[in-house]
Amino acid sequence: MKASLYHFKTLRDTPSDTELISHKLMIKANMIKPIASGIYSWLPLGTLILKKVENIIREELNNGNCLEIIMPLVQPKDLWDQSGRSKEYGPELLGFKDRNQRDFYLGPTHEEIITDIAKKEITSPKDLPKTFYQIKDKFRDEIRPRFGVMRAREFLMKDAYSFDIDENSMHETYSNMKKVYQKIFDRIGLDYRIVSADSGSIGGDKSEEFHVLADSGEDTLAFSDKSDFAINIELLDEKDPKKISGMSSPDGNGKLNLKKGIEVGHIFELGTKYSKAMGLTVQKDNVLKDIFMGCYGIGVSRIIAAAIEQNFDDDGILFPESISPFKYYIVLINQKGNQNINSEAERLYSELKENNIEVFFDDRDLNPGVKFRDANLMGVPYQLVIGEKTSRDRSVELIKRKNQQKEIIKINEIVNKFKN
Amino acid sequence: MKASLYHFKTLRDTPSDTELISHKLMIKANMIKPIASGIYSWLPLGTLILKKVENIIREELNNGNCLEIIMPLVQPKDLWDQSGRSKEYGPELLGFKDRNQRDFYLGPTHEEIITDIAKKEITSPKDLPKTFYQIKDKFRDEIRPRFGVMRAREFLMKDAYSFDIDENSMHETYSNMKKVYQKIFDRIGLDYRIVSADSGSIGGDKSEEFHVLADSGEDTLAFSDKSDFAINIELLDEKDPKKISGMSSPDGNGKLNLKKGIEVGHIFELGTKYSKAMGLTVQKDNVLKDIFMGCYGIGVSRIIAAAIEQNFDDDGILFPESISPFKYYIVLINQKGNQNINSEAERLYSELKENNIEVFFDDRDLNPGVKFRDANLMGVPYQLVIGEKTSRDRSVELIKRKNQQKEIIKINEIVNKFKN
Repeated sequence: MKASLYHFKTLRDTPSDTELISHKLMIKANMIKPIASGIYSWLPLGTLILKKVENIIREELNNGNCLEIIMPLVQPKDLWDQSGRSKEYGPELLGFKDRNQRDFYLGPTHEEIITDIAKKEITSPKDLPKTFYQIKDKFRDEIRPRFGVMRAREFLMKDAYSFDIDENSMHETYSNMKKVYQKIFDRIGLDYRIVSADSGSIGGDKSEEFHVLADSGEDTLAFSDKSDFAINIELLDEKDPKKISGMSSPDGNGKLNLKKGIEVGHIFELGTKYSKAMGLTVQKDNVLKDIFMGCYGIGVSRIIAAAIEQNFDDDGILFPESISPFKYYIVLINQKGNQNINSEAERLYSELKENNIEVFFDDRDLNPGVKFRDANLMGVPYQLVIGEKTSRDRSVELIKRKNQQKEIIKINEIVNKFKN
Repeated sequence: MKASLYHFKTLRDTPSDTELISHKLMIKANMIKPIASGIYSWLPLGTLILKKVENIIREELNNGNCLEIIMPLVQPKDLWDQSGRSKEYGPELLGFKDRNQRDFYLGPTHEEIITDIAKKEITSPKDLPKTFYQIKDKFRDEIRPRFGVMRAREFLMKDAYSFDIDENSMHETYSNMKKVYQKIFDRIGLDYRIVSADSGSIGGDKSEEFHVLADSGEDTLAFSDKSDFAINIELLDEKDPKKISGMSSPDGNGKLNLKKGIEVGHIFELGTKYSKAMGLTVQKDNVLKDIFMGCYGIGVSRIIAAAIEQNFDDDGILFPESISPFKYYIVLINQKGNQNINSEAERLYSELKENNIEVFFDDRDLNPGVKFRDANLMGVPYQLVIGEKTSRDRSVELIKRKNQQKEIIKINEIVNKFKN
């Protein structure tokens, strides 16, 4: 992508009303734009990153035999009356009437809709096990939206729902989904931990959260130094981090250490909570059985904020390659009037593009300092610098964004080198 | 995809409350599921097709230098007060209050939001021209939703918005976008026409609609038999089709013939309607100029219904290859207990998959009649039939869904043949 055809207008000043570094950097790098409290538009750079995260999630879920569907954001209240959650869910559930005075909610989650679908679709034990998922906007009317897309009201979520004939099969499905989640977060390249968690308003007997570790995380996680014990401290009787740190681990092995985390995924064994409430059953050996469900969420837009909280420096973002908007950022030094620099750069750009190597070509007529500032802010892992000398030698300087390591490479060797 | 891992449960009976063939077939083929009046879920098969349409649109818009963004569905009412449309738009605009008693609408379209974004983002003539688009759910509170996804309340739309320094540049952008639209509909493979149209509640001076021709179309289109004159008859003074047919063409060339069409795209030259109302200007040569806008819609979910209205027979759907959920459908004849049929089929399936050829393997233990019925209903262009004799000869029967043309092919020649 060429800068001249793109829309990449960074802010020079740091926005004042941002507490979190990810919020600040996403606004500065022109990824998102606030429209109302907790409601954002995603500009081209942010959208590109969001689609990358979305695609990784979709591919791994498809590989795990999960089936993509799309459910409506606008949900009839009567389904929520059936599950009992119209009374339980609280004021984050935004309700309204349509022009015919029928009651609807904006979906904060989709257990009711999927259970209703499953009642029509699952008619025999042969239909089980089955897992459906969607990647779809949700709306939660947060009392105090903040931290940018980390806690927005309208946000993109991946939610999956599994259906099994009995408890054992549900355990197996849950455990497979946990592996799919590990593949997703491994592939994105984030440092994360899985901890036992509270099931909250979703319900069910067992749940685990996936947390991206970051000092700015809102959650405090406790880990045993001797075992796999890992828990969100909201589950402990003692809630004061100062008292928990160094405490004996509840599993009897070792002592607890604390880390801060940002919740990016949450998986639940729902059991029969929704099937019992809404009458989702299947007949097996002449017996009507309640179907066992699981549900599995990933905060798609939130992952980007979490990735930034974990990967930044004084100059800006340090995206993991998997979700960086581009892999290479071409910077020209004093190219104005220098035919050689321009033609070498154009040639390099075309060749990289032809080979499907993702590259951003900063062809703006600005001083190099501005371009380096923007390149660093955007967080693209590699910069390709072409100036008078390098262009004369038909080479470029490759700078690794993270540690500023430099290397000179011949232009005609680049494509082969980068393709591997 | 194997049927045993998929969710493909066709209905044997024709749904009774469906007027249109596309609605009937989409329900029968288990693509969509009604949740409430005008509100649908998309099941795996429907979702797969929707994503194909979405990807074609995205690719062609990206090739046309349009930039993808994402705008919120939940929109503050005050922006609609600025444009004046909170009063004008009518009861399809669904409004509600959030928990803090602030007024919002569910977005039926996004001119207000994009104009607001442009006010912040376009600060110099150098930022022009620019076209942004999104592929995003919309909500229109139709008084009488019907025809399945053809006229739903929550539906998927691609909406693009262009910004230009003056009228001439707007004309050029509009004309380029029209070409991008032609590429999109050519690539999908639909028989469509472009006609002059009424700009309705979107506004502006000029608009054209893209119609998929189908006898069931709600719109009547008039074409001159001697010139390029083409118009939606709602623009003519005379509205009675019987009187229009054979009438002299208003451009003075030839007589008018009529066709029925389904609107799948609508492109508008908005001029300065929204920029004037909302103060979207840019300074050039020390003069503040109102920016010229265009807007460009495609009904993404509606395209699927329109494609079916144009392409079906007594047995079901005849999808154009571009948006068919799969390209090949493997049907086994009396495979139970026949090791040869099963192993040949598995081998064929694996090879096709390895070569990224999209194939559906109906491995269900059902009689062949049921499988052919489902294969015909799904509308996949080619069926690959393996029975006792063909499997012994290590070959398959290739049946073209559309005309039932048959051909015997050796299994070890298939991949090479299909890759081309």
